[in-house]
Amino acid sequence: MTVTITERVKFFDTDTMGVVHHSNYIRMFETGRVEFLRTLGISLNEMMSDGILFPIVEVNAKFHSPAQFDDVLEISTIAEALTRAKMQFRYEIRRRGEEKILAEGSSTNVFTHDGKICRLPEKFFERLLKGLQ
Amino acid sequence: MTVTITERVKFFDTDTMGVVHHSNYIRMFETGRVEFLRTLGISLNEMMSDGILFPIVEVNAKFHSPAQFDDVLEISTIAEALTRAKMQFRYEIRRRGEEKILAEGSSTNVFTHDGKICRLPEKFFERLLKGLQ
Amino acid sequence: MTVTITERVKFFDTDTMGVVHHSNYIRMFETGRVEFLRTLGISLNEMMSDGILFPIVEVNAKFHSPAQFDDVLEISTIAEALTRAKMQFRYEIRRRGEEKILAEGSSTNVFTHDGKICRLPEKFFERLLKGLQ
Amino acid sequence: MTVTITERVKFFDTDTMGVVHHSNYIRMFETGRVEFLRTLGISLNEMMSDGILFPIVEVNAKFHSPAQFDDVLEISTIAEALTRAKMQFRYEIRRRGEEKILAEGSSTNVFTHDGKICRLPEKFFERLLKGLQ
Repeated sequence: MTVTITERVKFFDTDTMGVVHHSNYIRMFETGRVEFLRTLGISLNEMMSDGILFPIVEVNAKFHSPAQFDDVLEISTIAEALTRAKMQFRYEIRRRGEEKILAEGSSTNVFTHDGKICRLPEKFFERLLKGLQ
Repeated sequence: MTVTITERVKFFDTDTMGVVHHSNYIRMFETGRVEFLRTLGISLNEMMSDGILFPIVEVNAKFHSPAQFDDVLEISTIAEALTRAKMQFRYEIRRRGEEKILAEGSSTNVFTHDGKICRLPEKFFERLLKGLQ
Repeated sequence: MTVTITERVKFFDTDTMGVVHHSNYIRMFETGRVEFLRTLGISLNEMMSDGILFPIVEVNAKFHSPAQFDDVLEISTIAEALTRAKMQFRYEIRRRGEEKILAEGSSTNVFTHDGKICRLPEKFFERLLKGLQ
Repeated sequence: MTVTITERVKFFDTDTMGVVHHSNYIRMFETGRVEFLRTLGISLNEMMSDGILFPIVEVNAKFHSPAQFDDVLEISTIAEALTRAKMQFRYEIRRRGEEKILAEGSSTNVFTHDGKICRLPEKFFERLLKGLQ
């Protein structure tokens, strides 16, 4: 499953080079991931109220071409892998209506309870599994 | 009491205009405030572990002249007023060794417990009072 | 004229208190301001390509009640005053569908050319004037 | 060569999970990189005034254990590889005085002139080479 959202680059996302600061693509990945999960009926707040956190343990990104202030970006999030202990996503960011990928990357998160890696409860696992299809 | 700290402008603090984004001066005020409190022997972590939070309810800032990447800034924090329910600070930001104020402002915070405004416990109030001198 | 946009609170907008960091409301004001200008047919990029910048010289904010991760916020931007040298906006932020104001504030910007305050060219002034109505 | 700097975690670096947001380690890598270059006598401003930019084209990070507000972190930057077209750094972040790595990663940057990848001028290359030893 791929979920694509649209975000406009904010002025505060840019830096002295006149482009989006590379750290902010990592934040866009998060925004994409949250909306991916929402599409599956999962909110981080629901998980957190069950005591389950979702920390990122690895992130990788390649920056091919810079985005600038006011660009409208499409952030695509793709679920890559899921076990009861962790999940992997992939991301692609393009300018709206363009083929070229500006930035892409991946993230791995674990599921934790009380600060320890846990097995994700069935109710969340079932929903996440649908995202792998 | 005035506490002055030194911070170098980070690349990610700047924007497309080639200057520090104005929202980041508000963050520098916070950095100054935290160090002011540390000088008085108060850590926010100690307050939080007693269940006391310190939310900002008002902030005002004037931006006179822009700072740029790699500038070394002096952030001065001055305690202006203190009651058991709230506290007010003033801030001045200069380039190191210069008289001219680049940005200045003020903040007001309240003290809360369980989300409600509370009277600050004596042990913190005593220490904060010293900052008014 | 009032322009209201909708933004969802991002995870990275929050802090250890579990609420939106106060500096991020200042960033939301900017997002609102940019969209207000777009409604009038003005893009900052067009101004910047004419050599005109729009630096914020003053910002004031009051924080009444905290927003949290995933809250959907309505950011209302109201033009308050306009001269050829500067402009003033007011902002109100609410949770979608609620009356209560979570945060409000104002900003003043000047218009500059080559780093000096300038008189805003007619073509921009005309459009901005419509925002005052 | 390894250059280690010390930075205290700011309140605005943290998120609702009570820890440093993972995107902010990427920013710490940048801070470390800038100070590494300064140690070699290179400032990004000097490079930029020669028309040379330093965009990051790849970043990878692993997050082993979370840092929290007010932690004092040691950010170590190690030069890994250098050609006239690009440079690679590695980073390790620890709590001051501790052995355990909290976050680590790497970045690759290219050197560009007028938006195109260029061969780094001798004067910068020579200085950077010393960082490889």
